[in-house]
Amino acid sequence: MTEETSAAEPRGISRRALLGGGLLGAAAVGAAGFGLGRATTGEASAGAATPGTFAFTGEHQAGIVTPAQDRLYLAAFDVTTNDRDDLVALLQRWTTIAARLTQGLAAGSYGPSSGPYDAPPDDTGEVADLPPAGLTITFGFGRSLFVTPDGTDRFGLADRLPDALVELPHFPADNLDPARCDGDLVVQACADDPQVAVHAIRNLSRAAFGAATIRWTQLGYGRTSSTSTAQRTPRNLFGFKDGTANLKAEDPAHVAEHVWVPAAAAAADSRDSAWLTGGSYLVARRIRMTIETWDRTSLREQEALVGRTKGEGAPLSGGTEFTEPDFAVTGRDDQPLVAMNSHVRLAHPTHNGGVRMLRRGYNFTDGNDALGRLDAGLFFLAFVTDPRTHYIPMQNTLSRDDGLMEYLQHTGSGLFAVPPGLPDGSLVVGEDGTPITTSASPFVGQALFA
Amino acid sequence: MTEETSAAEPRGISRRALLGGGLLGAAAVGAAGFGLGRATTGEASAGAATPGTFAFTGEHQAGIVTPAQDRLYLAAFDVTTNDRDDLVALLQRWTTIAARLTQGLAAGSYGPSSGPYDAPPDDTGEVADLPPAGLTITFGFGRSLFVTPDGTDRFGLADRLPDALVELPHFPADNLDPARCDGDLVVQACADDPQVAVHAIRNLSRAAFGAATIRWTQLGYGRTSSTSTAQRTPRNLFGFKDGTANLKAEDPAHVAEHVWVPAAAAAADSRDSAWLTGGSYLVARRIRMTIETWDRTSLREQEALVGRTKGEGAPLSGGTEFTEPDFAVTGRDDQPLVAMNSHVRLAHPTHNGGVRMLRRGYNFTDGNDALGRLDAGLFFLAFVTDPRTHYIPMQNTLSRDDGLMEYLQHTGSGLFAVPPGLPDGSLVVGEDGTPITTSASPFVGQALFA
Repeated sequence: MTEETSAAEPRGISRRALLGGGLLGAAAVGAAGFGLGRATTGEASAGAATPGTFAFTGEHQAGIVTPAQDRLYLAAFDVTTNDRDDLVALLQRWTTIAARLTQGLAAGSYGPSSGPYDAPPDDTGEVADLPPAGLTITFGFGRSLFVTPDGTDRFGLADRLPDALVELPHFPADNLDPARCDGDLVVQACADDPQVAVHAIRNLSRAAFGAATIRWTQLGYGRTSSTSTAQRTPRNLFGFKDGTANLKAEDPAHVAEHVWVPAAAAAADSRDSAWLTGGSYLVARRIRMTIETWDRTSLREQEALVGRTKGEGAPLSGGTEFTEPDFAVTGRDDQPLVAMNSHVRLAHPTHNGGVRMLRRGYNFTDGNDALGRLDAGLFFLAFVTDPRTHYIPMQNTLSRDDGLMEYLQHTGSGLFAVPPGLPDGSLVVGEDGTPITTSASPFVGQALFA
Repeated sequence: MTEETSAAEPRGISRRALLGGGLLGAAAVGAAGFGLGRATTGEASAGAATPGTFAFTGEHQAGIVTPAQDRLYLAAFDVTTNDRDDLVALLQRWTTIAARLTQGLAAGSYGPSSGPYDAPPDDTGEVADLPPAGLTITFGFGRSLFVTPDGTDRFGLADRLPDALVELPHFPADNLDPARCDGDLVVQACADDPQVAVHAIRNLSRAAFGAATIRWTQLGYGRTSSTSTAQRTPRNLFGFKDGTANLKAEDPAHVAEHVWVPAAAAAADSRDSAWLTGGSYLVARRIRMTIETWDRTSLREQEALVGRTKGEGAPLSGGTEFTEPDFAVTGRDDQPLVAMNSHVRLAHPTHNGGVRMLRRGYNFTDGNDALGRLDAGLFFLAFVTDPRTHYIPMQNTLSRDDGLMEYLQHTGSGLFAVPPGLPDGSLVVGEDGTPITTSASPFVGQALFA
């Protein structure tokens, strides 16, 4: 990737130069991105769809409708303090660091070429020569931050718990590992270079010392959804195109309807959840695929279960990838060409009350199990306006009826409320253009604590 | 990466077109690469250093001096058959599939758009739209293939065991997990796209059904060595540049001396190991870093332990990254500027009898442990002419004296004999230009069975 081309002249923004000191004039942290412009990274994603730098601030957090980057590192955290001020300070630090990292800066201003030599550097350094690679960092809050399973209100937030931030029900065939579930906080880091995404989580985790520790993490590669019409439909580990009918950023009316939490949600809530207006809900499900079994099934069976052709991704009712499936058309013996238990039928909006999701999942491969089988599958991520209408009913249907379930196991799960973005220009910016954490620093999710 | 740009017009070789049938004229599988030329992939590695397709055949196997790709998936296998013919047939199938995959073809000719519909497709399909992304596949043999730890000669190969294919000694501070060690066979898949590397191992593993099963695997990202002068020196997870002094492909004399097994080695061996002439030895070590502890040490301490500056990577004796360290120069209190226990001093050829290695390692992050600490580090890979002279003495020194060892744990280990390449033009090629497995198919390592 970039390493090969940048020996002589790194393209895009190099953190190395920035680590040494302030090259940047003061600027708002917003659409203008530290005044660095939207430089491309030198990755192949030189098209407009994936510039190398995404603004950190905005009406919504980045990393949702942002064209899906190719790599993911997601971490769920347990908050280890019971002090509300410590929690706020953590979110302030995280906001500052995330703003810096996404703009191609080091986590803090003390870098490897600028002392003090007798302190650890502010940044762990392994991306010092790499461009931002489209990094976005997205924060969310789990139900347990508001009220623990035993009913404790640790931070005085219980009266701010949104009705929709439910405990997900046990779905048929769930096989969840508690060590891969839930969490008080979640951080989704997406980038086109895994080293950049891992670096972000590592440095945020480091900044959480004494306030929060990692509960579980998930690495993903090969995004399994497009979130922009400029992106090609990728394939999941079943070898099929995935996300053909996904919501796309270029369809703002449907995104507004199905992704963002409207003011009306707070008005209808039993508690004060206005802080979440303009935010979203993140559903995370680690779905292991029984790869070896799938690989021994016939092409006919695979296509019947999915309801699409494997090569083109066209619905079995005919046409090409983007042809709408015709669920009524029948073939031999009057059987529907798109089988009743096929995934495309059961997951289609017409069979789910018209609801749609913005999916943003990734393939994962976490080595192999003791029998030599791949521990691999799909890390499902979806952003929705309300999981009670937009995920739970559909997943109940799929878990019960989807023929694909024979080859799937849900092994991890999480639901998080994702607050809206930080307004452009709201971050305190220092002389070198970098945001500064103070006791009054604005932070993502601040309205929750107001 | 490529996904973003290829919606309208995939660059490089698309497997999708190839899966449908024979687009290719007959060609030798060699430097000409199926007549596909050396198309670039559309990745950022458009420079000459990493073309998108590497020849599978040649004097040496690809994936050794090949400019290090950015991603790794390596799998060690246990052979489950005791039948020598089954083992040979496996290696024939693997050779054919590897030749195909590296040239951008599917694992077999029955793809998702070409029946028979009542059989599983030959290829699992998830890279159908992706270019080869610089894929190389490199095969090796573990000591246990020749003689099991209890002395059994399962395949009649005991009299072919090279003297240098030893059991690695227990090094000071080793903390090896047997489930991450050894193996009868090893397959190293490197590519610029992890989906391509994982796909290769998956399809080879599938083809091993009934003959071998995966013993352990390792995913890597962010190569930690350059193997070409055209590549920039990357950084490891300590945040330091790694591999500045690595052997490079552009230095064939030193590569010949330190990487390839010479004919003289066989002449001196106690058994018949001529089959390995022109091959190499692969040392694999999974080195976990205690990241959190490292991140709390001062910059001064970090630099002293490494012996180089963190920003530039210059030796502490002065100069720039590629300046040779001066181990004699002293500073305050007559202490050497490059400390006696520093990594760069202890690992330097001048302190190791002049030996050098071709390192080809990767960073890894395998989630977190139960305490929330990153399970991350360096997956060390090196190709050497003889591990008895080129790895074991140095590792004994490092394990005993290197100050960095305080932050390192070796948790996995393997040593493999890597046979030479398959001569250009030696594969049987079918009408569509693809190699065909027959009972007489040539295969990597064939001389071992002659």
